[in-house]
Amino acid sequence: MPWSASQYLKFEDERTRPVRDLLAAVPTREVKRAIDLGCGPGNSTEVLVARYPDARVSAIDSSDDMIRAARERLPEVFFERADVEDWRDPGPFDLILANAVLHWIPDHAGLLPRLGGALSDGGTLAVQMPDNLAEPSHVLMRQVAADGPWAGKLADANAERTQVAPASWYYQLVRPLCQRVDIWRTTYHHPLAGSEAIVEWFRGSGLRPFLAPLEPAEQAEFVGRYRSALAVAYPALPVGTVLLPFPRLFIVATR
Amino acid sequence: MPWSASQYLKFEDERTRPVRDLLAAVPTREVKRAIDLGCGPGNSTEVLVARYPDARVSAIDSSDDMIRAARERLPEVFFERADVEDWRDPGPFDLILANAVLHWIPDHAGLLPRLGGALSDGGTLAVQMPDNLAEPSHVLMRQVAADGPWAGKLADANAERTQVAPASWYYQLVRPLCQRVDIWRTTYHHPLAGSEAIVEWFRGSGLRPFLAPLEPAEQAEFVGRYRSALAVAYPALPVGTVLLPFPRLFIVATR
Repeated sequence: MPWSASQYLKFEDERTRPVRDLLAAVPTREVKRAIDLGCGPGNSTEVLVARYPDARVSAIDSSDDMIRAARERLPEVFFERADVEDWRDPGPFDLILANAVLHWIPDHAGLLPRLGGALSDGGTLAVQMPDNLAEPSHVLMRQVAADGPWAGKLADANAERTQVAPASWYYQLVRPLCQRVDIWRTTYHHPLAGSEAIVEWFRGSGLRPFLAPLEPAEQAEFVGRYRSALAVAYPALPVGTVLLPFPRLFIVATR
Repeated sequence: MPWSASQYLKFEDERTRPVRDLLAAVPTREVKRAIDLGCGPGNSTEVLVARYPDARVSAIDSSDDMIRAARERLPEVFFERADVEDWRDPGPFDLILANAVLHWIPDHAGLLPRLGGALSDGGTLAVQMPDNLAEPSHVLMRQVAADGPWAGKLADANAERTQVAPASWYYQLVRPLCQRVDIWRTTYHHPLAGSEAIVEWFRGSGLRPFLAPLEPAEQAEFVGRYRSALAVAYPALPVGTVLLPFPRLFIVATR
């Protein structure tokens, strides 16, 4: 199941908030050259360009649909279809942004120092990753996968995600390379219309590896079971919404 | 033990970061009248004035030492010694800021709707509270208090703090009054020089109710035991610092 820009952007405001918070914490003032790794439909790139209007900005993403949407959104930026895993530009970059992408890439122990190595002196690596594999939203996704007739087809679905390590692990990983390392973990609480909205949210991201291997009828059945489980785990509040707690880890490492 | 502005400001950068994050999320654009409740030494007020330079800003704090320091820092602001608990100004205020203070005030169920009632239409109540009573820093503080010869004197020390409720509780409390409620919980990870620095950090805040009832010799003994316990709970990293994870709850409620 390819990434879909329109599905992803159904929750654009909520999905753009973390990159705004991330870039607000970047101490680098002068950015001449910047790259947005895993730019998606360009919403993160747009925040980057707004914060550093004089920077030369490029961006990559592995999805054709995302790159198409991003080019339409920001014609002045150079967007290219490429995998972050294979990205080897030596830089130097004053800012490397990796917003909501590295949790899909393995081997953080090798990856982050490599990215840090492409920074200029005083340059910043700014990373944000969903850290929600232990949330009910994702525990239930795995349970529905394991308990259904599709269990065999979905045996590897979870392997697409990389487990986000504790903050102190990342701190120790990048601190030898970077003078200043600012790490925080934020749980946003998104008010959503109901459990159906939670399904729609994750259809644009975490559910993809679970739905992609299934036939349409199986997908409908999977989503039905998942939605029922969500309705119990995220009960509607008397004020008429559900709150989706969504933890994310942020790393701002400045060389 | 009275509040000390100089002790509090030993970690000024780290202590000011949350109020910057808090005010960055306030959607209200035009603020004519604002108040900073529990302004401390004026570091939060300074961020408020910088964000809304045209606002008429006043501020209160319960500590004479804090008010003195705040007046020196910002001569143009009206600072007054007063308790947040007793504050009854009907407003309307376009912004009510309560940064790192409401965790010292009881009865949030009554307090927050009262504060919300003093907002103008479109005005925002912006709250940030340390949510660290379950962190090792505070569990150990209570253990050292309960296990020492001072246990009797410190029986009520913990009662000065109000337990911060879950995000969804605050959401339901203020949502009926406020159209837009944005709640998040952030754990900052402060790199500090060692367990001695953690002691110094909390000497300016959380340790106060535990040290105030003790004689100087007892205080030294208490701090020594506390520091030893911290050194185990927050081990020095190979990179030569300790990380202090510090969770805080943020509420931005707009009428």
